[in-house]
Amino acid sequence: MEDPRIRKFQVSKNGGEQEDCLAVEEPLEIRLVYRQDGHLTEKSLSITMRTPGHDYELAVGFLRGEGILDGHHSLQSVKPILPERPGCNVVRIPLAKGTAFDPSSLERHFYTTSSCGVCGKASLEALQTMQGPEMASGRPRISRQIIPRLPERLGQAQSVFQHTGGLHAAGIFDRQGNLVCIREDVGRHNAVDKVVGRQLLDGKLPLEVSILMVSGRTSFEILQKAWAAGIPVVAAVSAPSSLAVDLAREFGMTLIGFVRGDSFNVYSDRGRLD
Amino acid sequence: MEDPRIRKFQVSKNGGEQEDCLAVEEPLEIRLVYRQDGHLTEKSLSITMRTPGHDYELAVGFLRGEGILDGHHSLQSVKPILPERPGCNVVRIPLAKGTAFDPSSLERHFYTTSSCGVCGKASLEALQTMQGPEMASGRPRISRQIIPRLPERLGQAQSVFQHTGGLHAAGIFDRQGNLVCIREDVGRHNAVDKVVGRQLLDGKLPLEVSILMVSGRTSFEILQKAWAAGIPVVAAVSAPSSLAVDLAREFGMTLIGFVRGDSFNVYSDRGRLD
Repeated sequence: MEDPRIRKFQVSKNGGEQEDCLAVEEPLEIRLVYRQDGHLTEKSLSITMRTPGHDYELAVGFLRGEGILDGHHSLQSVKPILPERPGCNVVRIPLAKGTAFDPSSLERHFYTTSSCGVCGKASLEALQTMQGPEMASGRPRISRQIIPRLPERLGQAQSVFQHTGGLHAAGIFDRQGNLVCIREDVGRHNAVDKVVGRQLLDGKLPLEVSILMVSGRTSFEILQKAWAAGIPVVAAVSAPSSLAVDLAREFGMTLIGFVRGDSFNVYSDRGRLD
Repeated sequence: MEDPRIRKFQVSKNGGEQEDCLAVEEPLEIRLVYRQDGHLTEKSLSITMRTPGHDYELAVGFLRGEGILDGHHSLQSVKPILPERPGCNVVRIPLAKGTAFDPSSLERHFYTTSSCGVCGKASLEALQTMQGPEMASGRPRISRQIIPRLPERLGQAQSVFQHTGGLHAAGIFDRQGNLVCIREDVGRHNAVDKVVGRQLLDGKLPLEVSILMVSGRTSFEILQKAWAAGIPVVAAVSAPSSLAVDLAREFGMTLIGFVRGDSFNVYSDRGRLD
């Protein structure tokens, strides 16, 4: 069977023609199905450009990041309504009976507050109002020794990147540094949604003793998704943004960047590292 | 004066403490000011996470990419209403009198058509309905020799990246390979909006004899922005996505990837290269 994440193209290189594999990018629509005033209602929440595959995980992870899904008990079923198949670019997520959903919460209110307007500080304050886990101070304890090994383990498991060179990866690791789950996507936020979604479907949220490792940089959005999943430690091959560090410090998360060779930088809460 | 694009942080590295410069990420709200039924109306179009600086260019470039601005004559003035200053995270763009604007066009209709639903093909078809430039076949002629030099010239001009390692860059080059404009941002789409916005404000759109070079990968969104600006040649250090290649082929753009050393791949319309 063909891998829906890869497509072959004819490409001109150094004067000759050759075949090249590229990462597939296609839009995905995420729709929420829920009860409102006794009626079954359906609402389109997002259209994202993503690499096909694990679409149900992506949608579920996205909904956790937005604070709409609490855990797998918020879902009507942990099985997708429709089987994932190539060419199907709509995912419908039915909420479990009794799960509260307020459509007005969908506006991305977390960027702004009435007191301060649009700024980084307001973005953090508004996240405080979202239902999220408490990070335990100084726990879990993690050995510094395992951090430098994470990029190699992530890279070895990046099957599609090896063919295309065109994908971001996100991996969940346990505190011994073993890879629990990896997903790849043209969008780095999608890769994080997919690993979080898988863990949610497996009933494993919050991920209190996990490490999230990403192949690129860390932004506000990546940290927000990790926080909503309860992940206390985020590591990355490249640099964090200023707002990623602010978020990590505000919420007591350990943020690690520039994991290269035996060296890495710790931007916040190094108390978890032995 | 401090550079608003860089912030200093204390960071723990190899057991010691040191100072590290990171790229600033802050939300920016883009608001459009226009006349509707004789009344001055203001509408929030987008909140994007960006690196501060060149916010007016970013907003203007974004509006061109969305098909809302045609050229600088669509703007009431090519000077920002408010001076850009640190901490100001709202940009208001006033449309020139007589410039048509239909708020319903804001829905990101280009992902879907009624015939096919959500898919890559529909995304391309819907772009066709947007007002955009015609790409001249086989023009401009560009020497292959200049392509391998672009990444180095872009890299040398990346002043913030050199301090932080955390930014994407986009550069506009002329057909001799001279750098015309470079912008850096935590979001690669923002960096492209900023260079396009600068050119629009200078009255230079469409950029019929220009090359866009980006530091990372190319996606549908990057190609769409280049197309809307009339740029016929897009080059990148890394891989394109499948939909970036589809768009380039559909609209007659030259798409180049993996520019490394003396080698590069041409994914579409190599007829422009001598």
